[in-house]
Amino acid sequence: MHLQEVPSKSEIIAAHQRIRNFVHFTPVLTSQKLNKLFGVKMFFKAENLQKGGSFKIRGATNAILLNKESLKNGVATHSSGNHAQALALAAKNQGLTAHIVMPENAPKVKVQAVEGYGAHITFCQPTLEARETTLKNIVNKTGAMFILPYNSYDIIAGQATMMKELVEEIDKLDAAFIPIGGGGLISGSILSAEYFSPNTTVIGAEPEQADDAYQSLKAGSFIPSKNPDTIADGLKTSLGDLTYPIIMKGVNDIITVSEQEIVDAMKLIFTYLKQVIEPSAAVPLAALIKEKANFQKKKVGLVLCGGNVDLEKLPF
Amino acid sequence: MHLQEVPSKSEIIAAHQRIRNFVHFTPVLTSQKLNKLFGVKMFFKAENLQKGGSFKIRGATNAILLNKESLKNGVATHSSGNHAQALALAAKNQGLTAHIVMPENAPKVKVQAVEGYGAHITFCQPTLEARETTLKNIVNKTGAMFILPYNSYDIIAGQATMMKELVEEIDKLDAAFIPIGGGGLISGSILSAEYFSPNTTVIGAEPEQADDAYQSLKAGSFIPSKNPDTIADGLKTSLGDLTYPIIMKGVNDIITVSEQEIVDAMKLIFTYLKQVIEPSAAVPLAALIKEKANFQKKKVGLVLCGGNVDLEKLPF
Repeated sequence: MHLQEVPSKSEIIAAHQRIRNFVHFTPVLTSQKLNKLFGVKMFFKAENLQKGGSFKIRGATNAILLNKESLKNGVATHSSGNHAQALALAAKNQGLTAHIVMPENAPKVKVQAVEGYGAHITFCQPTLEARETTLKNIVNKTGAMFILPYNSYDIIAGQATMMKELVEEIDKLDAAFIPIGGGGLISGSILSAEYFSPNTTVIGAEPEQADDAYQSLKAGSFIPSKNPDTIADGLKTSLGDLTYPIIMKGVNDIITVSEQEIVDAMKLIFTYLKQVIEPSAAVPLAALIKEKANFQKKKVGLVLCGGNVDLEKLPF
Repeated sequence: MHLQEVPSKSEIIAAHQRIRNFVHFTPVLTSQKLNKLFGVKMFFKAENLQKGGSFKIRGATNAILLNKESLKNGVATHSSGNHAQALALAAKNQGLTAHIVMPENAPKVKVQAVEGYGAHITFCQPTLEARETTLKNIVNKTGAMFILPYNSYDIIAGQATMMKELVEEIDKLDAAFIPIGGGGLISGSILSAEYFSPNTTVIGAEPEQADDAYQSLKAGSFIPSKNPDTIADGLKTSLGDLTYPIIMKGVNDIITVSEQEIVDAMKLIFTYLKQVIEPSAAVPLAALIKEKANFQKKKVGLVLCGGNVDLEKLPF
């Protein structure tokens, strides 16, 4: 990696030190049955057990702590997903106000979670335009700082701590399968692999129905998703201008998977790891299963990126 | 405890030493949100992550290792539940043949799990009589030894290692809520609490619709369940003549819970602990919620006794 300005090794080490009192060092889970079924030695980093139910608290906490002096009027974002919960919790941990713009059709369970962390919620029409306008009004009115969900080096450095923990715990990992939404997690993972475990290749995992990173890699230029529609709701977002170049330069390959492959992998994780995960967190296993011939007897890391799923809408 | 013949402190220590290479030292999970919701400091022993998906591997392994010289013709049992999987796996780990009698209407997922451990399955009519007759024929024909599911001191000493681990990891536990089916787990837990943490009280948790232990405690004599019918399928069994006296003498209280309370607690565990559990494993939390006024700010252990649930029949 020789991109200018991307988080350095020492910045990621500093981020890890900075956030460690506010996030879990999540466990790495294994299943002899899953290993036997597919002939791969799998190591699942259980970010579904992370505070706020996903890895997103890592980046949100790092961004808040790095900018704390400018945040006396609080933080703000628009999100219907894990970033909303993560920012609300990270703000609460630092005694800051969080303003969250959510679409009026956001799942009740997610609204309640954000409320539970004491955030101020403003509902808006469920369009990107309405979300951005509403957020802008709130930022103007309150002076809160907009904390981006993924397209920010502060966020990327925070998410990078996941992979740092994984490769420090599991020696000689051959590869890691990382889901791709906006690209914050995989950008951070690419950097941490390069700095802390250069022999670990990073492979992206993406739904076929939200495959902007795959299409961009094939074309050699940025192609955003058009009307992405997948059960893996956390992965609908397209890459940003900071995550895109890190991924294009650093990813070893990107594997896309069908909706059925995602559901099948999700069921395997519920059955053998006994972990409650959201569909996005099954995408890396679905991709590895598809590529298993290339990873026989290899040590492969996979991220269970989140566990915030509507239990009344499980796909099985 | 001054009952004759029950497993001694040194026998439980020896059992733990004996089985430790064949079972997981399972993690203890916590949730700040659950603690806040109910005002109790809860410590969940995650036996759903145990080998075979439940605590039952502890007793089965202890029974096999204690009797290994007499087992050259293998082991046998009848079970449609976790004991079948546990015995099949424990036998496989020692290179022994397991013969499992299962009712022909046993869930396919459980049959496949037992087959996956290489056990010989014999199907029979779904009545206790047919199960016992079929098992007797197999034992006569093969010379395999019948390994009981709970009413045996070898099994009780094995299950006791769960509570030994819990109280050794969590200092000064005020109480532990333990589910009651046949009584093997709670009998072992009562003994381990007395030997290793005498200030920890043991409280039984039972479905209202399979409340033989509660009825027996009230009446002062053994009253088996009549037609028990509960979603907590692992807890339908009535106590045995070895588990009954240990429980009556050692339990501090027995709390019964409704079917709805079990489902509600199960959903809380999926939501906040992100753990896949079977309904039986939600019974201790359901009981604690009912009794929460008596445990404010106390440190309370709860056992997630198993995770073998039919994902297509989740009650939410």
